[in-house]
Amino acid sequence: MGLLVLKFGGTSVATVPAIENVANKVAAEIALGHKVAVVVSAMAGVTNQLVTYCTAINPLYDAREYDAIVASGEQVTSGLLALALHKRGIAARSWQGWQVPILTNDVHGKARIKGIETDNLKASLARGEVAVLAGFQGMAGNNRIATLGRGGSDTSAVAVAAALKADRCDIYTDVDGVYTADPRIVTKAKKIPKISYEEMLEMASVGAKVLQTRSVELAMKEKVPVQVLSSFDGALGSDIPGTMVVDEDNIVEQEVVSGVTHSRDEAKVTLRNLPDVPGVAAKIFGGLADAAINVDMIVQNVSPDKARTDLTFTVGRADLPKTLDILKAAENDGLKGIQVESSADVAKVSIIGIGMKSYVGVASKMFQTLADKGINIQVITTSEIKVSVLISEEYTELAVRSLHTAYGLDQA
Amino acid sequence: MGLLVLKFGGTSVATVPAIENVANKVAAEIALGHKVAVVVSAMAGVTNQLVTYCTAINPLYDAREYDAIVASGEQVTSGLLALALHKRGIAARSWQGWQVPILTNDVHGKARIKGIETDNLKASLARGEVAVLAGFQGMAGNNRIATLGRGGSDTSAVAVAAALKADRCDIYTDVDGVYTADPRIVTKAKKIPKISYEEMLEMASVGAKVLQTRSVELAMKEKVPVQVLSSFDGALGSDIPGTMVVDEDNIVEQEVVSGVTHSRDEAKVTLRNLPDVPGVAAKIFGGLADAAINVDMIVQNVSPDKARTDLTFTVGRADLPKTLDILKAAENDGLKGIQVESSADVAKVSIIGIGMKSYVGVASKMFQTLADKGINIQVITTSEIKVSVLISEEYTELAVRSLHTAYGLDQA
Repeated sequence: MGLLVLKFGGTSVATVPAIENVANKVAAEIALGHKVAVVVSAMAGVTNQLVTYCTAINPLYDAREYDAIVASGEQVTSGLLALALHKRGIAARSWQGWQVPILTNDVHGKARIKGIETDNLKASLARGEVAVLAGFQGMAGNNRIATLGRGGSDTSAVAVAAALKADRCDIYTDVDGVYTADPRIVTKAKKIPKISYEEMLEMASVGAKVLQTRSVELAMKEKVPVQVLSSFDGALGSDIPGTMVVDEDNIVEQEVVSGVTHSRDEAKVTLRNLPDVPGVAAKIFGGLADAAINVDMIVQNVSPDKARTDLTFTVGRADLPKTLDILKAAENDGLKGIQVESSADVAKVSIIGIGMKSYVGVASKMFQTLADKGINIQVITTSEIKVSVLISEEYTELAVRSLHTAYGLDQA
Repeated sequence: MGLLVLKFGGTSVATVPAIENVANKVAAEIALGHKVAVVVSAMAGVTNQLVTYCTAINPLYDAREYDAIVASGEQVTSGLLALALHKRGIAARSWQGWQVPILTNDVHGKARIKGIETDNLKASLARGEVAVLAGFQGMAGNNRIATLGRGGSDTSAVAVAAALKADRCDIYTDVDGVYTADPRIVTKAKKIPKISYEEMLEMASVGAKVLQTRSVELAMKEKVPVQVLSSFDGALGSDIPGTMVVDEDNIVEQEVVSGVTHSRDEAKVTLRNLPDVPGVAAKIFGGLADAAINVDMIVQNVSPDKARTDLTFTVGRADLPKTLDILKAAENDGLKGIQVESSADVAKVSIIGIGMKSYVGVASKMFQTLADKGINIQVITTSEIKVSVLISEEYTELAVRSLHTAYGLDQA
């Protein structure tokens, strides 16, 4: 008899029948004796439509008004789910961000939750009601509606679970868990039953788009057990059919490598013949930061002649044209003589595993595996539990499959 | 340099270009030096879509959840209009019902406004901001969202105008004013420049669907000058191009008859051979009231034999089948021997005019005019400033046109 927070994304509440399906899942958890709070996204497509209106009217829109507009989508689904629960004889009420209230900072459009006042929610749950919360939103200063950024409903759910000290936070989505690799590429990919917060965080940041990165950070900080599972296959959270994201200590047998991820959303830029003097990197990356361009992998080669050097980095593929414009400007502004090369035909492939901390030779096995297949590694970056390599995009599937086999992840 | 409240209905904000048009009107009033509060409806069609969702999920929906769901439509348009004003360099912010707050009673789905806290609004207006209010909504007890019933944005606008002591409340809609008759029937119908609250109220209740009846009642009680005008013909409220609804005292030259209205939404029921004893009418109308059927005109004929009598009344045409069922049940329950006759081929035609109070012969001229055209009057009801007759539906246009001419309303 626990307290559960269930989160349903946009595809899970996209239509009236989908909402009925969600109500059935909530009803099944109630029948098991659990108390339930639900966090819902807007119907799939609704938020995009609202953003389109905003952009059409005023591309330089005031984020406070944007927030009031786009938060309306979750308002609708929270009410509709409450109605669907009533039909099943289950007491329920909707809660908008301002009604809870979920308090945020004033960074409209991508606000952060400062705190959740739980007295009203707890009283409602104690009366036996299901609390149906509008995700993605809260209340900033001056009683203005604030939203948490795209995908923010995951963060809403984890924050509510933390505030209520829930036993589990089930994130229902359109995949049935986290896999050792993308099953569309690796047919032998396995669903991972348990994964650590750290691994999930690395996966979220290198391309596995299952959970919003911020929600994983928050779950890790607050030690909220999170399960990723599917809305669409009849599974129920309390049967633990999905992937549990938990503290490292709760994973008895740690895999050396838990998964192989890939991302095609990369572009590579190489600057040759850079003056090897202090301040050059700051000049280049400062300009990119000012343009809100996120730089991912950075490698500076040893300069052969000690006076000039080469620098390679990656940016999001969509940001490549703007990046080249900025570098052109820098060239005209004190960095004369540099050569700029770029390529969008690259992919990032990563291996992730908490077990790497205590094993040696994990990275060298990766490099050897790729070399055996004739795949050239362009850039390498590592963290304590991740190794990422940049390769030519055409080798993506081959690299992922080879690594999946090499680290013993293929399904028996 | 006044304070104006402008209200724009669903067709006036149905699309992005329509919202831009609204912003232009607001900007024009600001350019004249006025302070402006705007009340907006949802985009045309949105509220119906949301109601369809509610009904699909749970026909017996909880009105509190219904309110949270349908109020979202106005939330969107209030934000979008604020963005469109920003683009024109005009400071503006959206206000949801709970943000003002507009306080209502707890009758969800058709709540009444109890009060409006104006401190925040006034401070915003004083800072030079346009206040863009979501119409149709307020906050009931327990911080729940409440809505005022269909067409409630008119009432929102008048209530806000009263609370702010605005100089005028302009209701922008899809017609350019109140006419002496429906221009689709009477080509010589004239726009009425000024009409009294009482006349407008009678017109609203007998078929002129320009303003919600409740909003006129409120305007009369609070003495808010209301103008009805079109969003679509380039007119600006401050030029007073529409129909002003004002106190009787402000109308210098009162017409004997201000307008001729008609309604085809009627059905007639006649009960013959009713026992002429106390309690019979109560039995019949009590049953109809229990079924929420609104009875309009009622006439009881003198009974020729002093023991039995005839009774005629009208109901909404859509309610006729249910009405006949109830009368059938009453016949089997102590009203044996009565005969029930009914007809849906009827129309109600009314003449309305504040001047009737001080002129005699107004009604008889109506009866004579209709008689001259061979139109039989089936039922007559009168109020102090209105005479309504029920006639065969096929004569509707002829009756309206004849009366329009007879009372000197034809355009020169």
